[in-house]
Amino acid sequence: MNAEDPTKEREETKSALTAAEADGLNAYWRAANYLSVGQIYLLANPLLLEPLVPEHVKPRLLGHWGTTPGQNFIYVHLNRVIRIRDLNMIYISGPGHGGPAVLANVWLEGTYSEYYPAVSENEAGMKTLFHQFSFPGGVPSHVAPETPGSIHEGGELGYSLSHAYGAAFDNPDLIVAAVIGDGEAETGPLSTSWHSNKFLNPCRDGAVLPILHLNGYKIANPAVLARLPHEELENLMKGYGYSPRFVEGSDPLDMHQKMAAAMDACLDDIKGIQQAARNGGVRERPVWPMIVLRSPKGWSGPKEVDGKKVEDFWRSHQVPFAEVRTNPAHLQLLEDWMRSYRPEELFTPSGALRAELKALAPKGKRRMGDNPHANGGLLLRDLMMHDFRDFAVMVPSPGAVEAEATRVAGAFLRDVMKENMAAANFRVFGPDETASNRLGFLFEVTDRTWMDEVMDYDDHLAPDGRVMEILSEHTCQGWLEGYLLTGRHGFFSCYEAFIHIVDSMFNQHAKWLKVCKQEIPWRRPIASLNYLLTSHVWRQDHNGFSHQDPGFIDHVVNKKADVIRVYLPPDANTLLSVTDHCLRSRDYINVIVAGKQPSWQWLDMESAVRHCTCGIGIWEWASSDTLDGDPDVVMACAGDVPTLETLAAVDILREKIPDLKIRVVNIVDLMTLQPPEEHPHGLKDRDFDDIFTIDRPIIFAYHGYPWLIHRLTYRRTNHYNLHVRGYKEEGTTSTPFDMVVRNDLDRFHLVADVVERVPRLRQKAAYVKQYVRDMLIAHNEYIRTHGEDLPEVRNWQWTRTLKPSTDGL
Amino acid sequence: MNAEDPTKEREETKSALTAAEADGLNAYWRAANYLSVGQIYLLANPLLLEPLVPEHVKPRLLGHWGTTPGQNFIYVHLNRVIRIRDLNMIYISGPGHGGPAVLANVWLEGTYSEYYPAVSENEAGMKTLFHQFSFPGGVPSHVAPETPGSIHEGGELGYSLSHAYGAAFDNPDLIVAAVIGDGEAETGPLSTSWHSNKFLNPCRDGAVLPILHLNGYKIANPAVLARLPHEELENLMKGYGYSPRFVEGSDPLDMHQKMAAAMDACLDDIKGIQQAARNGGVRERPVWPMIVLRSPKGWSGPKEVDGKKVEDFWRSHQVPFAEVRTNPAHLQLLEDWMRSYRPEELFTPSGALRAELKALAPKGKRRMGDNPHANGGLLLRDLMMHDFRDFAVMVPSPGAVEAEATRVAGAFLRDVMKENMAAANFRVFGPDETASNRLGFLFEVTDRTWMDEVMDYDDHLAPDGRVMEILSEHTCQGWLEGYLLTGRHGFFSCYEAFIHIVDSMFNQHAKWLKVCKQEIPWRRPIASLNYLLTSHVWRQDHNGFSHQDPGFIDHVVNKKADVIRVYLPPDANTLLSVTDHCLRSRDYINVIVAGKQPSWQWLDMESAVRHCTCGIGIWEWASSDTLDGDPDVVMACAGDVPTLETLAAVDILREKIPDLKIRVVNIVDLMTLQPPEEHPHGLKDRDFDDIFTIDRPIIFAYHGYPWLIHRLTYRRTNHYNLHVRGYKEEGTTSTPFDMVVRNDLDRFHLVADVVERVPRLRQKAAYVKQYVRDMLIAHNEYIRTHGEDLPEVRNWQWTRTLKPSTDGL
Repeated sequence: MNAEDPTKEREETKSALTAAEADGLNAYWRAANYLSVGQIYLLANPLLLEPLVPEHVKPRLLGHWGTTPGQNFIYVHLNRVIRIRDLNMIYISGPGHGGPAVLANVWLEGTYSEYYPAVSENEAGMKTLFHQFSFPGGVPSHVAPETPGSIHEGGELGYSLSHAYGAAFDNPDLIVAAVIGDGEAETGPLSTSWHSNKFLNPCRDGAVLPILHLNGYKIANPAVLARLPHEELENLMKGYGYSPRFVEGSDPLDMHQKMAAAMDACLDDIKGIQQAARNGGVRERPVWPMIVLRSPKGWSGPKEVDGKKVEDFWRSHQVPFAEVRTNPAHLQLLEDWMRSYRPEELFTPSGALRAELKALAPKGKRRMGDNPHANGGLLLRDLMMHDFRDFAVMVPSPGAVEAEATRVAGAFLRDVMKENMAAANFRVFGPDETASNRLGFLFEVTDRTWMDEVMDYDDHLAPDGRVMEILSEHTCQGWLEGYLLTGRHGFFSCYEAFIHIVDSMFNQHAKWLKVCKQEIPWRRPIASLNYLLTSHVWRQDHNGFSHQDPGFIDHVVNKKADVIRVYLPPDANTLLSVTDHCLRSRDYINVIVAGKQPSWQWLDMESAVRHCTCGIGIWEWASSDTLDGDPDVVMACAGDVPTLETLAAVDILREKIPDLKIRVVNIVDLMTLQPPEEHPHGLKDRDFDDIFTIDRPIIFAYHGYPWLIHRLTYRRTNHYNLHVRGYKEEGTTSTPFDMVVRNDLDRFHLVADVVERVPRLRQKAAYVKQYVRDMLIAHNEYIRTHGEDLPEVRNWQWTRTLKPSTDGL
Repeated sequence: MNAEDPTKEREETKSALTAAEADGLNAYWRAANYLSVGQIYLLANPLLLEPLVPEHVKPRLLGHWGTTPGQNFIYVHLNRVIRIRDLNMIYISGPGHGGPAVLANVWLEGTYSEYYPAVSENEAGMKTLFHQFSFPGGVPSHVAPETPGSIHEGGELGYSLSHAYGAAFDNPDLIVAAVIGDGEAETGPLSTSWHSNKFLNPCRDGAVLPILHLNGYKIANPAVLARLPHEELENLMKGYGYSPRFVEGSDPLDMHQKMAAAMDACLDDIKGIQQAARNGGVRERPVWPMIVLRSPKGWSGPKEVDGKKVEDFWRSHQVPFAEVRTNPAHLQLLEDWMRSYRPEELFTPSGALRAELKALAPKGKRRMGDNPHANGGLLLRDLMMHDFRDFAVMVPSPGAVEAEATRVAGAFLRDVMKENMAAANFRVFGPDETASNRLGFLFEVTDRTWMDEVMDYDDHLAPDGRVMEILSEHTCQGWLEGYLLTGRHGFFSCYEAFIHIVDSMFNQHAKWLKVCKQEIPWRRPIASLNYLLTSHVWRQDHNGFSHQDPGFIDHVVNKKADVIRVYLPPDANTLLSVTDHCLRSRDYINVIVAGKQPSWQWLDMESAVRHCTCGIGIWEWASSDTLDGDPDVVMACAGDVPTLETLAAVDILREKIPDLKIRVVNIVDLMTLQPPEEHPHGLKDRDFDDIFTIDRPIIFAYHGYPWLIHRLTYRRTNHYNLHVRGYKEEGTTSTPFDMVVRNDLDRFHLVADVVERVPRLRQKAAYVKQYVRDMLIAHNEYIRTHGEDLPEVRNWQWTRTLKPSTDGL
């Protein structure tokens, strides 16, 4: 653009940009700001070809201006470095409620019109762009799944940086620019996610460029980080392990020079770090660059409205002034504001961005809106997977052998890890619990990711490890989401109680998936988010009450049926089958709950596969009813410990009351219980009635809070006869069996439940009830004396099955 | 202890302690360590008066040794400064799973035997202390509600520092020592809670002394902060605004000197800061001191077991070696380990701590185990409260006036704040949303707490403000919990969707309350934790799908019925009544869901009080059934928006089908729906049947996920006829009425539901259904054209009631 030699001019003026370059960036920024204001305010007259009248303005004004100009500024500068350095970059908008910024930019760069042809690059398209924003039937006010180039909603704050790192892992050529608002920076999840740099390997991973955007204010308050003394803030960023560069001010041309210089320096640093590591090997954790951008909130907007400060203040957070339809002064203010960007210099008469500005955007897939990493399904490759049957536990007959379910699954995961090592598209995540959750076989083929110092006695720590452990469920979840959304696969194991820490993150991911699946055909399916919840409520007897909470399932089932799945495999082979299924699935959130302790195994591999395929089944090998005619009682169970207690109760009942006809039903896929109208896995009513009968008592032993089973089955014919035992919030440090006794889920209570509910047993009730009472007293005395469970409980084994388990299914 | 002049000796040796003082502290520390190991391992032979045999050892070994010696070390040094400076101090054990440490120390100082006389200060008591730990019928392995001196469980990590600050607010004489494990330090909530110092006023608040305990390892990994280069860690702490002092090493006597010097310096600093502020006024935020203690994990325990590194490594995290009953070498190792503390020097032959060591503990209420702040109910004073009726909205007849419910409640809260300003025992908490949630009247009497720089245009920021705002729900919740647990009152307002961020913190507080109420008579009742959830699912039309989630209620009702309450006041006067009730209640978690938008008001104050007292009621003024005979349909509603839609539907039905007998039921107290066996507020079945009939269709419009109503009512007689509308996870940026339409909760769908379910209306179905279809089509067209709701919806008003609302109840 400058006829003279730009390099020379830059050298002479000691500037990052020539005057013409700075002007160009500023014009592009003005265009983005203009389009942002237009989206918030206008229905029509997008180019201001005629004077504004109230009818041009939306009746309801919804949007967030405050963060928007700062994000436009950042985006413009990222475009510059992408263009001149040919970078592969995506953009994460932490303050995602600044939707107008990203929408403006992806429209300017041309991506938006490619994804949504109706929003074309002309006046009509600009009018639609404005009209649709935050308008019924239009697009959300936030950076949402509908927004090309985004993997991050930004409505619930805290996760931008962990998403960014998740995207960068195993993408060595990718740079993820992550804008962190000073509001978001106050959240816990964001505060700890700065430490993600301890897990980023400059050889095999890409880079994250954090841009902490201090615009000073939240909704109504200054932001904490924005008011820190400079030295404290600098110390904080250095303490997090970054080298911060400060870009501070409000004069646009001056700020363009500073920002361009800072960007260039950061990208030089990134290149230097990566080259050094990739040529010389990883020696120590690098100090990565980052930018602190301090710019006014609502920058370039009205300084005052009705005599009150707006620019550089919280009043610009949302819509700076709202009486535009009714107050002519406000209408004039809006028109003056929009004309201050001089749209006639930015757009052609037909409404397209002028060519010399368009040239400042990157091209094709280099445009951040069109980078395939932000539509990860495009890049997704299936996992290479061994046949999970090869890891089967040999189960000659039900209850004949013990195994630790998660350890068996760990062997399978190890081989998945090994098979996909070259593809570099699978990682395992967890808060310091991979070994504790008995997935330690993984360490035969990989290590824990660790970029800091390693001692010679340390255990499987390495920069190229693929097990990601940090004691922050938030960070694990954020990394995993970022990894999945950019087209890879993962697995998250966690203590069951503490997965509640990410309840709200789960919500947001479930909402993202729902919208993508139902409404956005161009979003390609991504790998499911797989949780393995172990160290569960029934075996936290050593950690006590604070570690006992099975409520995540309840939380999960509130979300849309077509994105959530819940599995309760009762043993190792069913866990294998379920794990295989989950790793192959797409666009779901799969919750698997399984134990890690040595437990009796019930199903051989073929039976397990059949059982998991149905999701629910009658265990005839355990039942004493005949094929013709209904049983006296249905004993249903879901979860490993409830299954154990149910079978032990069946054992007692069959001994005490040999002619009792018991049907044992086991549920792996909890969603089979719901009606098919509610969940695609729901059993048809007729099938449900066949299994549970229409009139016999059902004693249901459930892993979690019992009322969930009622909530799932209240429309079923025989719901009236359903009696559920589960966790009723009783617990402490005790023995494993005492935990079930405290919650009436133990074999003895189940026996009593059966006797109480089968009418013809009433005459036998007395002696069986006496037996139950005696056993519970004996239990109490024994644990208080010996500190461990009754030998007859500890040593109990199912011995009734002589035939192999496959026969029964 | 030293015959010579200790001051002189200290000066001459340039040490904080004389040799004798260091020896004394070390002996006390050995005693605490000895008792800790004993708790983890022994059933009997507590003084090792005879050689250990397997029978002396517990059959199941449960406990966490790793953190314990470090915490013992800290506790001993805190005792020293309390004693020599006469400090008022409580102790927060972030690594609360190190239960043996606190139990050992409160026993040594004599508190434990006062609270639990059976655990006396002699051999028998010591045996009980050992036996009961992590033993069935005994005490939890964590620092739990059962532990005197604790307000913090430490099982779920992340909240120690926010609890500590919550305790320090408005307690100017209190110093809260907060031990933060390096595992906990990785969590999000902890990472941001360091910034709590920006909200601590040295004049009116106490002090927090953070002690970051780097013992290097978590369960299986090094800790991130423990492996940072020294300079980074120091920058991090300085960046958080603290002045760190490092105490690092492993030689006990050397470490005692360093720790005593660091403690003295920190306490001098605290005193200096407080004196300067209290004499000269608050000028700027002080830089508070903190300690970084780097000591080996499992310090003083076995260095190796079976040739594997244990001390200073993750293998010492729990029980360092476990085969003590079966492996004679392990048994010997245990005996050697315990004898290495030389118990015979520490305890009298009868098992009491020797007098010269006992003298090192503080006395009476100065003992951290007996500090009344750690049993806050002891200090709790009732709030002074204006009669909430004085803030009533005048409602001449139902639907005659509009009001913003939370704004009205805000006026009440303002006066509560004012009345209790002198007592300094009430604060309001929220993530930057107090004004947005329309509680702004509070700012007439107080400000937002803010210790950093204040600009002249800032809005109600001051060091002595009593509204606590930080954009971290975790920190708000942690502060509030700490404030309540130390005997004060509080109120937390939050966007409904984002309260899920603290789901797991809610869990832990509910568990704490449950245990206190049911099992620990010496724990005195504390003020309830009150949530006001507003900006709720139905009025997040501008922020869109990410902000729409009413599931916190579902989460809450999983906890014990005797600690949780859920209220859905339909208008301002009911919100006033409920708020008053919640502020007066004790030991509950109260969840109030209420809107902030201008809405029609239904009940005058007296009606509102009566309605809230019952928790549920028939609104006869809206009903068209007669007192004798059952209605054709029951239209039930819970929540402000469902109430509006129900009444609008009733209005339509009464116009279209004048002879239809409709009964309108409104539910304020959701727990009335449950059977009384499940919740103390549950209606008796007969009363429930009277209200809901036993055979008429019930159309229930509910604020949240509809299945919750089924889960609460599935045992009720007429459950079969219950049809619930609620949020079914559909939403985006749209209009308020479109939100209810998308979820079938709108007046038109409710009308259709009624017509479909009342048998005698079938012949009228066609024209009413046509009306519904027409209206929904008109709605869709109108919002897409105009961007706002149909005028007949926006302008709808209830005009049927001529009599005052009180008559109808």
